Amino acid sequence: MMRTLDAYLDHIGACNRWSPADYVPFRIDHQRYGAIRRDRLDRLAVEDDLLTVTPDWVALIAKPDRLARSAALADLVQRLVASGDLPKVRRELYPVVRRWGQEPVALLDRGAADYFGIRAYGVHLNVISEGEMWIARRARDKAVAPSKLDNLVAGGQPYGLSPMENLIKECAEEASMPSALSEQAKPTGAILYRMASDKGLRDHILFTFDLTVPADFRPVSGDGEHEAFYRWPLDYVDDLLRVEDVFKFNIPLVIVDYFRRVGRISSDAPGYEDLALALAGGWRGKFDD
Amino acid sequence: MMRTLDAYLDHIGACNRWSPADYVPFRIDHQRYGAIRRDRLDRLAVEDDLLTVTPDWVALIAKPDRLARSAALADLVQRLVASGDLPKVRRELYPVVRRWGQEPVALLDRGAADYFGIRAYGVHLNVISEGEMWIARRARDKAVAPSKLDNLVAGGQPYGLSPMENLIKECAEEASMPSALSEQAKPTGAILYRMASDKGLRDHILFTFDLTVPADFRPVSGDGEHEAFYRWPLDYVDDLLRVEDVFKFNIPLVIVDYFRRVGRISSDAPGYEDLALALAGGWRGKFDD
Repeated sequence: MMRTLDAYLDHIGACNRWSPADYVPFRIDHQRYGAIRRDRLDRLAVEDDLLTVTPDWVALIAKPDRLARSAALADLVQRLVASGDLPKVRRELYPVVRRWGQEPVALLDRGAADYFGIRAYGVHLNVISEGEMWIARRARDKAVAPSKLDNLVAGGQPYGLSPMENLIKECAEEASMPSALSEQAKPTGAILYRMASDKGLRDHILFTFDLTVPADFRPVSGDGEHEAFYRWPLDYVDDLLRVEDVFKFNIPLVIVDYFRRVGRISSDAPGYEDLALALAGGWRGKFDD
Repeated sequence: MMRTLDAYLDHIGACNRWSPADYVPFRIDHQRYGAIRRDRLDRLAVEDDLLTVTPDWVALIAKPDRLARSAALADLVQRLVASGDLPKVRRELYPVVRRWGQEPVALLDRGAADYFGIRAYGVHLNVISEGEMWIARRARDKAVAPSKLDNLVAGGQPYGLSPMENLIKECAEEASMPSALSEQAKPTGAILYRMASDKGLRDHILFTFDLTVPADFRPVSGDGEHEAFYRWPLDYVDDLLRVEDVFKFNIPLVIVDYFRRVGRISSDAPGYEDLALALAGGWRGKFDD
């Protein structure tokens, strides 16, 4: 009997739950770089030395260069933390870009990315050994998704590193993997999802990579992000995808994308078309009313 | 030196050149199933026994069932051919669906798919042997893209077959491949493109498959669609992608998607994000103004 794709589609659906009507564009220099929740317009209208707030969009007041824009955003973030509208800053800078690799118009603290709905980037690695997949369990003290299952290696994409450089860094930190091994990882594409979060809007691109490691490879956590590591048959990982809530919410997308690419998902299963397009954000477009 | 992705992006761009403002939705039973060129509204308004034509949409007048809807569309196609608005019919039926695998609301001749802008489907196979790719040259008498390079096996997806069944059929017809081999093909996803064509709008989904064949495999054309076959190193195929117009227009998308999935495209190359999302139609969405 053919397995249905419902569980896969549910994971993708959960990561793409947001209502465009609840947001307005956040603009810098007349281009959209983010999305801000409509119910925050009144709060933000107060900051009229930094922002222009209208019912249809919010714009950063024009500044001469990246440094000035970054400073204005940093001021704004500080005020939002002070007023309790943002929980805290992360002290890690994300570039504000429309596409990865462009010169950023500004830098913004990672902790404020969702509040402004800017596009944020990450790297995620599928680690395979003898046809089995390495999976990690997140530490119980993580702020996001404590104790949930995770890719062996994954991380936010900061300003100043290329995706491959970042992946090699994360492989060392999260799995004590030597660069001679991690630099053999193969880039396999990107996953897009947009999701209403308690902070605002997560507009995320996950750059995906595959790596085959030797049979005797054993990951060791270098940074305490993960408290256990497992090597499981793909069928067992697939079973876990059908159990609710054992993975950090976005990890199933990376694994389903891997399953799709390597031919584990039947083209004849109902929902295959949606599944194949949805991972890249292509399930909706002009005319898809 | 890193190779740029410009040639890949140009191929994808060429297959996604259309202006939504030039089209209106084509509706059946209050849902959109296609897109019709605005400049054809006057011509179609004449057919008021079959169509409701407004400045903002065209709808098939309500019919009780699939058979009646198919007959109405067949009448319409016949009149369009008689008046010279459509060149000819293909005598092959495509299902009118919003997603592959749904019960079609109607069947429509393949030759009229672009005129009504319905979503049409195809299967495309990457055939690999000893790390090299099999490529075919289309016969010089083909109506579409004569003498251009092509996937070894590709074909339109008719009503009544699953994608995998269709692929096996096409493998036999186009390469005389035994089903014991072709049924080992692995489904790897779907590519979406929308392109203004001289007939109307091509709204296509290509279901992609990979197959590794033995070193001694030699394709033989069963149906005369191809007049030559080549087995080329991936680097040479990649070089050909950078030469204008040697492939049938949509074939580079299938090959670039293969290159992406197997890790041949650097994640650090400018344009990687667009490339990865564009193949699934995800390069545009809400807020991407």
